[in-house]
Amino acid sequence: MTSRTGSRTGLQAPPPPVLDRCRALVEPALRTAVRTLHPWPRRMASFSLGWCDADGLPVGPGNSGGKGVRQALAVLGAEAVDAPGDAAVAGAVAVELVHTFSLVHDDIMDGDERRRHQESTWKAFGTGPAVLAGDSLFALAVETLAGAGGESGAEAVRHLSGALRELVHGQADDLLFENRPWTGPQAVDIPAYRAMALRKTGSLLGCAMAVGPVLAGASPLLSGALTEAGRQLGAAFQAVDDLLGIWGDPESTGKPVHNDLRRRKKTLPVLAALASDTTAGRRLALLLDSDAPLDTADAYCAAELVEEAGGRAFTMAEARRHVAAAHDCLDSVPLVPRAVGELRSLSEFLIDRQL
Amino acid sequence: MTSRTGSRTGLQAPPPPVLDRCRALVEPALRTAVRTLHPWPRRMASFSLGWCDADGLPVGPGNSGGKGVRQALAVLGAEAVDAPGDAAVAGAVAVELVHTFSLVHDDIMDGDERRRHQESTWKAFGTGPAVLAGDSLFALAVETLAGAGGESGAEAVRHLSGALRELVHGQADDLLFENRPWTGPQAVDIPAYRAMALRKTGSLLGCAMAVGPVLAGASPLLSGALTEAGRQLGAAFQAVDDLLGIWGDPESTGKPVHNDLRRRKKTLPVLAALASDTTAGRRLALLLDSDAPLDTADAYCAAELVEEAGGRAFTMAEARRHVAAAHDCLDSVPLVPRAVGELRSLSEFLIDRQL
Repeated sequence: MTSRTGSRTGLQAPPPPVLDRCRALVEPALRTAVRTLHPWPRRMASFSLGWCDADGLPVGPGNSGGKGVRQALAVLGAEAVDAPGDAAVAGAVAVELVHTFSLVHDDIMDGDERRRHQESTWKAFGTGPAVLAGDSLFALAVETLAGAGGESGAEAVRHLSGALRELVHGQADDLLFENRPWTGPQAVDIPAYRAMALRKTGSLLGCAMAVGPVLAGASPLLSGALTEAGRQLGAAFQAVDDLLGIWGDPESTGKPVHNDLRRRKKTLPVLAALASDTTAGRRLALLLDSDAPLDTADAYCAAELVEEAGGRAFTMAEARRHVAAAHDCLDSVPLVPRAVGELRSLSEFLIDRQL
Repeated sequence: MTSRTGSRTGLQAPPPPVLDRCRALVEPALRTAVRTLHPWPRRMASFSLGWCDADGLPVGPGNSGGKGVRQALAVLGAEAVDAPGDAAVAGAVAVELVHTFSLVHDDIMDGDERRRHQESTWKAFGTGPAVLAGDSLFALAVETLAGAGGESGAEAVRHLSGALRELVHGQADDLLFENRPWTGPQAVDIPAYRAMALRKTGSLLGCAMAVGPVLAGASPLLSGALTEAGRQLGAAFQAVDDLLGIWGDPESTGKPVHNDLRRRKKTLPVLAALASDTTAGRRLALLLDSDAPLDTADAYCAAELVEEAGGRAFTMAEARRHVAAAHDCLDSVPLVPRAVGELRSLSEFLIDRQL
């Protein structure tokens, strides 16, 4: 059992060295690509990537943005089909850029003021400039992948553009969910939530795992299995994010405690609790159905009720089920065992960080 | 000499039939592509394209969005290299989508509340949703072109992504120009303005003219000449837009009179007037350098001074010079005369509409 805020930082395993190895392979190309941008969007892009503060001053390596999961999945995907990690670099750069683009624009849409222990990009630079920063990251991603050239580069662009379609679709659903009631016939059910999560988070993870193999000219059988493994992993990540959005330690999430509850965001733990047919679930429905904003005490109470109704355990199980499905995908086709081993331990590390 | 509001609607030639012919060829594919979007971004995209009102109700053909210049240039570009217009359709769809994306996001960045006689997309649907609508149009453009397949499809994606880089660069410059003073060493000079206009408006027009030839497998010599012709045409369009931003009849522009002056936008007529070394230019500098907002009388006075200082005539001449340069590009390589004739008369119609 974790503490109420879900922080187990002291007990957590250190990040697997594969993240650093892949970062060393990809980040120089990522920095080279970003350096080609106009100075102003470049500053905002570097800020969004966690490389500098809002004034453009470099920040220390301890603070340098995300974990680089997508770039690592791209490199490991290539290695899993027996290609050198180098073959994935253009794809890894593209998926990191698209990921950053989506964070910048999603923070505008969601009104999120904090991201990774600093202001979100729109909060630091203004909404209009942040729209431009996101657009420049998006365009740079497409340009990077299109520049990889050849038939495999073109196929990689098709994969990326398919993922972008899904990403936008999932974000649209997620935003629309916010306007739907918690209960009654118009409420969001768990299957609809799952479809949204696969699109919003799964699509880009699927693309990340497949883009290296696609660039390396792997068969559709292999790239298809890796796409599906990535999608499942993405759904698992979304479940973990949902847990962090309620019980995450603000010190490690960089966001306020109970953030998603206060915003009445439709997340899996809450939906599962409401669907639980328990007294706690019914009390939660009454609390959420009120129009009044949730204050600190209400949010604390809602988090308790979600847990009591089984929403937290349900979501943990959902995450583990998706990770298992991802591993099944990896086992369903002939891949290089060493790379598969690294993919498995990376995915377990990322899920275990908060379960 | 045109009237103060620049309206000569009664005297204007009817649009050349080539616009309707190209629309008939491209619009079905454009509508098919947009129909594949998630219903919510689809509604916003259709609104931005001028196909429906904010409630999703179809609007009459008289009101249906832009003139479709970019799709016509794409079709005529293909025909100019002796390919059927059909060969350009995926490219024409992509450039219309990117154009619409850029209008939606630029209106957010510029705070423009009106566009084509209706509310701008962010004004009608909210900023966050409009960011999403733009993203979905952008993603759809890349997907459409990537789906064209083959080496020529891949080359077309490279052209489009290069144009997107330029577009973002030009928009960044344009936004930064707004914060620079009218006079003194930090002022925007005409060469800097020209570089911005070539990027912001020229890049996508260049891509529009070249994408058909690229998809049809034309030689780099031909597609290069058409790219440059499109860039020059784009710079001419920007000059005309600058004239419309000051003297355009609100009934035909769909924007308030003197809109750009009130917003102190750095446009060519004003920059040329300030650089004119005339009494009117110096009086204009005094008026603009004041921090107070320009009221109706000030804006009227500023427009008079710009004209008196020669800014209007300078900008007209600039537009005509760019059109002539575009025509020179078309004459510099062997192209199909009939298509070149249509390109010439289309570009002249578009420029003459307000000169």
